[in-house]
Formats: sequence, structure tokens, C-alpha cells
Amino acid sequence: MTHERIWTAGIAIIGDEILSGRTQDKNISQIALWLNLQGIRLREVRVVPDVEQEIVDCVNALRTRYDYLFTTGGIGPTHDDITVDAIAKALGVDVVIHPEASALLNSYYEKRGGLTEARLRMARVPAGPAPPPTRLAGAPATRHANIFTRGGVPHITAGMLDALTGTLEGGRPLLSRTIGCWVAESEIAEMLGAVEKAHEGCQIGSYPFFREGKVGTNFVIRSTDEAQLATCASALVSELTAIGREGVVNGI
Amino acid sequence: MTHERIWTAGIAIIGDEILSGRTQDKNISQIALWLNLQGIRLREVRVVPDVEQEIVDCVNALRTRYDYLFTTGGIGPTHDDITVDAIAKALGVDVVIHPEASALLNSYYEKRGGLTEARLRMARVPAGPAPPPTRLAGAPATRHANIFTRGGVPHITAGMLDALTGTLEGGRPLLSRTIGCWVAESEIAEMLGAVEKAHEGCQIGSYPFFREGKVGTNFVIRSTDEAQLATCASALVSELTAIGREGVVNGI
Repeated sequence: MTHERIWTAGIAIIGDEILSGRTQDKNISQIALWLNLQGIRLREVRVVPDVEQEIVDCVNALRTRYDYLFTTGGIGPTHDDITVDAIAKALGVDVVIHPEASALLNSYYEKRGGLTEARLRMARVPAGPAPPPTRLAGAPATRHANIFTRGGVPHITAGMLDALTGTLEGGRPLLSRTIGCWVAESEIAEMLGAVEKAHEGCQIGSYPFFREGKVGTNFVIRSTDEAQLATCASALVSELTAIGREGVVNGI
Repeated sequence: MTHERIWTAGIAIIGDEILSGRTQDKNISQIALWLNLQGIRLREVRVVPDVEQEIVDCVNALRTRYDYLFTTGGIGPTHDDITVDAIAKALGVDVVIHPEASALLNSYYEKRGGLTEARLRMARVPAGPAPPPTRLAGAPATRHANIFTRGGVPHITAGMLDALTGTLEGGRPLLSRTIGCWVAESEIAEMLGAVEKAHEGCQIGSYPFFREGKVGTNFVIRSTDEAQLATCASALVSELTAIGREGVVNGI
């Protein structure tokens, strides 16, 4: 078995609205699914408040630990939007106006009352070489070093991810196969551990549910190797059959 | 103005299923809203994979930093459930079988095929003084030092929170008031910052949206003081009126 490089990412979600419970986060799963298609594994997420030093510490922890860091939230025009300042501080650089972002904003706001000082805040970026911002959807998305900065509104994040598709270096995507069964996970815990152990390169997650008054579990097998995945899934279905249970491919 | 103690909490979400994007997290907002009613502020959330050392580091970072730490996930009977071991390692203690949890499980599984070795795993807890586990819903919820450990399935978490209601020491709950307006946040960013600055003890968050083809923003004012909150909300509505906009109480 060759050892392939695994590309990793972290997410920093900046937002009092998530920590207060007001907003239900939708970006974690959206970014996670997208990263997986790029062959990048999401390894950690942190949600921190709109407090500069907390953002700085979070950005520094995650940008050094993973190949890529995605931040969401705090890049609008208002006083509570301090993500850019925090990232600049984390990188030890000044904040400057990005000429292309400024031009984008200028044309966007030309017929919307003009580019005010508050709106120009959205063109502020950490100083240093940076590719042009991708698309404009309210606030430009920017990249600095391995840090991707985007808005917190889920459909804006979706547009920014779309624009980045295929541009980041990654490895083989993590594949998965789900086997569902009307069985309590506690009934087959030992068998499950044994099947995982027997199939190198596969991890099996066990996700119980209660539905239609019955207990069931979906078993999610993950691997970067399609053949290993198929073998492991077959083995699990056989083991379930052996104890008189039906394993449903694609889950229940 | 008297300085009151602010009680804080962190959440550690243990689960490859969140990081893979397979499962959309619902526990953050659920726990956040509940904490707020207990007078406790959620200050940080971390999502980490089912890897022991990552959980240990996360638990140690959050338990020392905040008054309370809530962990969700990884307390079932299967091989991927390693939260208890990681918490014990973080606390530097052994893992033991909790007699009351074991008795609860025994009676629960009496008519469900008996208490197998895998099921008994759910009675494992870090050694040390601990109150009896709260309720049984598949896996018992337990408390050790300032760490509350519970399942990841949202309705199980809900039951466990319900059982804990009113039992944790907290401060004054953070109150909030929302003012909605059909205005782009960039149009009123400076005014908004000025209103916040003029009202000590109040924070204003700005949450733009796009709806019915129009741009609008909800402004959420937060404070522990009802009178300060009301004054700040009135001031914001007046300022919006002054520029010919209507501020809608309770948001749009």
C-alpha cells in the first residue's frame, strides 16, 4: 500500500449569531461536502465570537495546522465585521485596500448609491500577494497564503465555493458507502469492530436512529479506495445476514 | 455599573459525521439557546474527529478556559465511541464502570436481549466523584468536574438538557431584541456603529438577507439589561426613521 499525501483543511466560523443560537449553521456541512469532492479532508472546525484576539488565536492555530483554512463571517461593511483585521494581525501584516476588489465594489454600487467609506471596508485585505477576489456577492471572497475568507450567508458561501472548484490541490477524495440495518448498534458492536479491523484503509462509523417506532443504524464505511470499500461493504452485509439481519445498501 | 460575573461554556463536538458533511449539526444552536436561558454564554465550539489525541487536546483546551464544557457524540457502544476514554485521559484518571449507569443499562436491556459487553461500554466513565447519570436514552449522560458528556443524536441531547435545566450556576441571561429594516447594511454601517458606541452594555449584530428580490438587514441588539436594551432599540428605530426607513420590531 502506497502512502499518499492527505490534504487537510480547517474552518473558522466567526459569528456571535452562531454562538447565541440565533442562527443554525449551514456552512460546515456545505464546505465539508465540497472539500471532500476536492480531495481535501476537513479535520477541525472552530466557532469563535466577534472578538479580535479570539479570531487571531483561532486563525493562527488552524492555518499552521492544516493545508487550507476557510473562514466564514465578519467580512461585511459594519462595525462587527473584524475578520480581515484579525487575519492581518495573525499574519503580522497591515490591512490595505485591494485595487481589484475596490473596482468591483465601485461598479457594483455605482447604481446603488455609490461607494461609501463603509462599503469600501469590504475591499480591505491583509497586505501581501493575493490573487484577485473571486466573484462579487455583497462582499468579495479573498485568498491570502492558505487562508480563504468568505461571507457567512450560506448562498454567498456556495457561490464562492463554486468559483473555487477545481482550483485547489488535493488528494484522492474520501469515498463512502452506507449500509443500513434495523438493528441496535449495541447488538452488533463487536462484529462491527472486527469488520473494520479486517479491512485496512476503511473506517466504519455507526449512526443509530429511531424511526417508525423502531431502532436502526446506518453504518458508513469510508475509504479512498473504491475496491477496498466494496469488499468491506460486502463483508458487513454478509455478517449481518449471518445473524439474520438485512443490510440495506445506501442506508435506511 | 456593577461588574457581574459572566459564566461561560464551550462545546466539543466529536464526530467524523459532522466533518465529512454527512450530518448537518443541530446541537450547536440547541445547546446555545438552552445555555443562554441558564445565564451561561457559549464562547467557543470545536468540532474534532474521532481521534483520541485530538479529543484530549480539545477537551483540555476548553475545560480549562470556560466554566462548563459540553461534549456531544462518541458515547455509544461501538468501536468508534472513544469520548469517555479521551476525557479520562484529559483528566489523567482511569476509566471505570459507573454502578448506577450500569444498573440503568441493565434494567433497560433486560427485555432487549440483556446487557452485553458492548452495551456495558456505555456505563464506562472517567474515575472520580460524579453525580448519577441523568436519564437513560440509549447512553447515559454524565458529569465529571465541569465536563458534561452526552450523545450526539439531537433529540437525546434535548432530553439531557431538559434534565439539567436549572441545575447549573449561571449569571443574568443575555437578552436580545431584533430590529429589521429593508436597508442594505452598507448604507447605514456608520450610524449603526455610532448607536452601539452610545449604548454601553449593548452589542449590535448586523445580519443581511436577500428576500422577495430585495435587500434587508436584521439588527440584533444584545444586553443583560432590559432597560439598556429598550433604550438602544428605540435609538436605532429613531435613527432609521431619520433617514426615511422603517425599523420593524422583532425583525423582518
